[in-house]
Amino acid sequence: MRPNIKNIAVLTSGGDAPGMNACIRAVVRTGIYNGINMFGVLQGYQGLINNNIIPMDARSVSNIIHLGGTVLKTARCLEFKTDEGMDQAYANMKAHNIDALVVIGGDGTFTGARRFSERHPVSVIGIPGTIDNDLYGSDFTLGYDTAINTVIEAIDKIRDTADSHDRLFFVEVMGRDSGCIALRSAIACGAEAVLLPEKATSLEELIRTLEIGAATKKSSSIVIVSEGHKQGGAYDIAKHVKERFNHYDTKVTILGHLQRGGSPSSFDRILGSRLGYAAVNELLKGSSRQMVGLRGNDIQLTSLDEALTAHSFKLESDLLEMTKVLSI
Amino acid sequence: MRPNIKNIAVLTSGGDAPGMNACIRAVVRTGIYNGINMFGVLQGYQGLINNNIIPMDARSVSNIIHLGGTVLKTARCLEFKTDEGMDQAYANMKAHNIDALVVIGGDGTFTGARRFSERHPVSVIGIPGTIDNDLYGSDFTLGYDTAINTVIEAIDKIRDTADSHDRLFFVEVMGRDSGCIALRSAIACGAEAVLLPEKATSLEELIRTLEIGAATKKSSSIVIVSEGHKQGGAYDIAKHVKERFNHYDTKVTILGHLQRGGSPSSFDRILGSRLGYAAVNELLKGSSRQMVGLRGNDIQLTSLDEALTAHSFKLESDLLEMTKVLSI
Amino acid sequence: MRPNIKNIAVLTSGGDAPGMNACIRAVVRTGIYNGINMFGVLQGYQGLINNNIIPMDARSVSNIIHLGGTVLKTARCLEFKTDEGMDQAYANMKAHNIDALVVIGGDGTFTGARRFSERHPVSVIGIPGTIDNDLYGSDFTLGYDTAINTVIEAIDKIRDTADSHDRLFFVEVMGRDSGCIALRSAIACGAEAVLLPEKATSLEELIRTLEIGAATKKSSSIVIVSEGHKQGGAYDIAKHVKERFNHYDTKVTILGHLQRGGSPSSFDRILGSRLGYAAVNELLKGSSRQMVGLRGNDIQLTSLDEALTAHSFKLESDLLEMTKVLSI
Amino acid sequence: MRPNIKNIAVLTSGGDAPGMNACIRAVVRTGIYNGINMFGVLQGYQGLINNNIIPMDARSVSNIIHLGGTVLKTARCLEFKTDEGMDQAYANMKAHNIDALVVIGGDGTFTGARRFSERHPVSVIGIPGTIDNDLYGSDFTLGYDTAINTVIEAIDKIRDTADSHDRLFFVEVMGRDSGCIALRSAIACGAEAVLLPEKATSLEELIRTLEIGAATKKSSSIVIVSEGHKQGGAYDIAKHVKERFNHYDTKVTILGHLQRGGSPSSFDRILGSRLGYAAVNELLKGSSRQMVGLRGNDIQLTSLDEALTAHSFKLESDLLEMTKVLSI
Repeated sequence: MRPNIKNIAVLTSGGDAPGMNACIRAVVRTGIYNGINMFGVLQGYQGLINNNIIPMDARSVSNIIHLGGTVLKTARCLEFKTDEGMDQAYANMKAHNIDALVVIGGDGTFTGARRFSERHPVSVIGIPGTIDNDLYGSDFTLGYDTAINTVIEAIDKIRDTADSHDRLFFVEVMGRDSGCIALRSAIACGAEAVLLPEKATSLEELIRTLEIGAATKKSSSIVIVSEGHKQGGAYDIAKHVKERFNHYDTKVTILGHLQRGGSPSSFDRILGSRLGYAAVNELLKGSSRQMVGLRGNDIQLTSLDEALTAHSFKLESDLLEMTKVLSI
Repeated sequence: MRPNIKNIAVLTSGGDAPGMNACIRAVVRTGIYNGINMFGVLQGYQGLINNNIIPMDARSVSNIIHLGGTVLKTARCLEFKTDEGMDQAYANMKAHNIDALVVIGGDGTFTGARRFSERHPVSVIGIPGTIDNDLYGSDFTLGYDTAINTVIEAIDKIRDTADSHDRLFFVEVMGRDSGCIALRSAIACGAEAVLLPEKATSLEELIRTLEIGAATKKSSSIVIVSEGHKQGGAYDIAKHVKERFNHYDTKVTILGHLQRGGSPSSFDRILGSRLGYAAVNELLKGSSRQMVGLRGNDIQLTSLDEALTAHSFKLESDLLEMTKVLSI
Repeated sequence: MRPNIKNIAVLTSGGDAPGMNACIRAVVRTGIYNGINMFGVLQGYQGLINNNIIPMDARSVSNIIHLGGTVLKTARCLEFKTDEGMDQAYANMKAHNIDALVVIGGDGTFTGARRFSERHPVSVIGIPGTIDNDLYGSDFTLGYDTAINTVIEAIDKIRDTADSHDRLFFVEVMGRDSGCIALRSAIACGAEAVLLPEKATSLEELIRTLEIGAATKKSSSIVIVSEGHKQGGAYDIAKHVKERFNHYDTKVTILGHLQRGGSPSSFDRILGSRLGYAAVNELLKGSSRQMVGLRGNDIQLTSLDEALTAHSFKLESDLLEMTKVLSI
Repeated sequence: MRPNIKNIAVLTSGGDAPGMNACIRAVVRTGIYNGINMFGVLQGYQGLINNNIIPMDARSVSNIIHLGGTVLKTARCLEFKTDEGMDQAYANMKAHNIDALVVIGGDGTFTGARRFSERHPVSVIGIPGTIDNDLYGSDFTLGYDTAINTVIEAIDKIRDTADSHDRLFFVEVMGRDSGCIALRSAIACGAEAVLLPEKATSLEELIRTLEIGAATKKSSSIVIVSEGHKQGGAYDIAKHVKERFNHYDTKVTILGHLQRGGSPSSFDRILGSRLGYAAVNELLKGSSRQMVGLRGNDIQLTSLDEALTAHSFKLESDLLEMTKVLSI
């Protein structure tokens, strides 16, 4: 039985990720196609509190599917963690007769959505949007595929120059707690070594790998360093290595926030479109407090409770093994 | 029990696809890592018949992971369909003491591999490599993700100019029998309509869609035409539409073979690496006449028999529905 | 002596070209920096007639420097060729107190500007914006560099697949009367042959070139066909060649309007910025009926009269010769 | 009168730059077209000393025009600064009957070439190849255009995420002594401020600029820092700014050596082709100890003496002024 939902709002929260705009577009147009009045909330939960809520029609999401970032902007919002903040947000939603909320973001976003829906009679669906791919309930999160493509395009350029000289490159990529970006980009660009936050790699081990490479006539080597690595960032590691291994000249690149941007890949545009489309259809079917995610090639639901507690993501073990085998 | 495999050859056959080089690299290095002597066959089955077989070491696949095309080249080969052809190929393999074969390609490639392994005592593993994504047993084939990214980059550029004028664009994409590229790229670039080989779309229906777009103030529209569409290619469709719908100036682009090229996406590099790695490991475990494929986020086996007979690929129904809903 | 200019409008007209947005931004901000009120005219001269004129501030051109197309849109406008059209346009300008006009476009745009400024007391400066590079008075026009980059990226992808098979590709590029895009992209992608509108190339000559390539073991060949070639487009040429030269499989790509789009190259962004900056500064110095252009690495003025009559562009002779020498 | 040149060698030296391969291809094929035997020297002057000299034919430069880096590799070579080193190099050249040398590189490369040709009877032509654009005698050096395109693609991605949040980004680009890359990329990506090695910018001045931006509602700002800036790299500057200006969250990206790589832009491919073509033609006309360069749209000669002593490159003054005007 279809619930009596007439007005839906959508917001993006936490770090932005490529594909969020494709997802916003899908949410808005799927709502309008089904006769719902659609609203956009600017700057995440803060906009809900500040009543920064605007009506959206089909044309207001024209020509955004290919844009990086999020047209709704995003912000961190401490105030929404308080009861007063949530009450003010709810008052604003009621003033617009908004019955349901689609939130696009990560862990923090879902935690807020869960608490909000416990306190106030609002239907919520979460959409996993973060470049870190560290959420339970979806094989891939929105933005992850684009982020890796961005990393490998950068490293492909470094490889060009690496092969012209004999050089050793350290490239620092995002992932404070999660080595997902580092691991997949290491496979995809054929890096000689990768340092992950989840895995202690001793300096000795790294240097041994580099020495074997030099001995087997590798003309250059690339080491990917996850920003969350315990022994420090790329600059620190490079410095330590340089003291003990001087076959090559050593260079450092810190990719930083460019990994968050860029036009979303086809994968992220399609994923964002499917998740946005599913989120609204689920709300119209009466679902709430669920996350929509990709499992295999299918869209599936996971309760926010499970998504937030399980959090059991592990690095794929075949990929970990492959970083060693394929870089010989 | 590990079979007595000491020498493995790899070849690419049929149409080339981005990611094949990443896959060849993984096959060769996984073999060498496991103490196997590795060989590359140039120009597919033709090279097997012509004894165009070269030894490969770890360095011979250096710096190819990011290259489009296939360093082993590919060719169509009628001769391999004959018993004489297969016998000659086998004789050449025996001369090199090659015990097993990894073949990267599509339907035709697998048909050849199956017949060859029926006639001669050769272990074979197939890897699905084709931009068309039309094989049973793998959610995605090697090259498909890159091809769609190529298409959407092209259409993004067209969209720029479409919005500066009021225009109607017809873009012809690959897929003689399969609308996979057309469907996913239509979603990913927000096309107003898509014509698929699997689905009859009348001219009336198309024109009605375009008229609704014009009435709701779309400043331009993009129609994706699969090359296999029954009513003809993009030029034909454009001509018919122009006769009856003249709100916009009409323009045609034929993407053609540029869809086969380009540096592989991270998805295809990782997929190629995983499939190549798995293929060799399967041979070493004693598997034969199997295809390795991606199901969800896991590598799984499908027998060549099943892969070749089932062939039950269907366009994702949610995507089909979404082309209508999301382009309002 | 600085003339009494207080309000300036800017418009884009004719075919859109990448870099126009960078140029609009520079015009608007240079004006505002100098205390001028700035206006944008939507859809070229048609917008002037229809009073589609909007005030612009510094923020209204934020974040457009990297976008293809033109945010002011463009249109062809027959009405502006009539006295009535021009008078109506002038009346609208007077109603906004607009003293001067910056027009970005090609030949047709400048012809309109010249006639308009003869009939009405309006200062005008023209900025050469067209991907065809066919204007006198500027070594490069806005959009040309990006267009060639777009073409070579496409052809690089074709080359990937060309080398995997033995193939002959025909790629049709823009340029009805001008072979500029064809010639430069032929050099930049190492094409085996190029057919230009300015130069008769017999089929015999083309086939001889291809035969020499085949004889000297070229594994594939790429022929660039300018859309204005007298013997027909790429499909026609390919058909004729195929009848007489069958060493390779023959394939056709029609790039079409994707050549107009895409994020502008650094060259076009800088060129657009410099020309827009110079255009406003020239108006403030009292110049009128001039075109600003790039000569060497300097910005120089050419009168619209000269720009429109000289029109003496010739294909660079060293490049013509190089297409033959470098593709051996 | 044509000198009696029968064998020419080409080498790349110093830092690699995109377009070097296009240039090598042009040198080799222009030589072969004119009946000259062509040689490639691996690893710059070191290869000349080590007799790392290989014959090149037309096919040996097939399919490299689009590749970054240099297929001939490069190296720094202290030994070539000694008389013994030069004598050994000359002995190796004589053993191959090599009469003339084309050297592609920067200041150091040309200094070596000049001294070598003073000591031994060898004709030399220099080609300006460096991403820094800091040579006298050519408006643009090989690789500069590609490097700026690489920088702006990176910054475009950062801009996406900058606009989703309110943020301040510091991006460090190459240029130890030369702000050419920083200045042009600042214009091309619309940076709010740029710090150049040639120009002292006080922290106060920078902070004032950022405060004006914040006051006029810029949602984010990007500051480009040349690696040679006197107040330190991007990390140092960011730290100092953060202490006194906290409107935004502050983030740092160090692009590093990815600026040297990447497929060359059309501009650099054409420039490399023209310079390579001209270099060989000049040798065949009897020129020596000259550099070929681009002036305006023409190829011109500058003597190595002048190129090395004048070294009077100045940042374009209109661009400097524009960084201030266009970022309001």
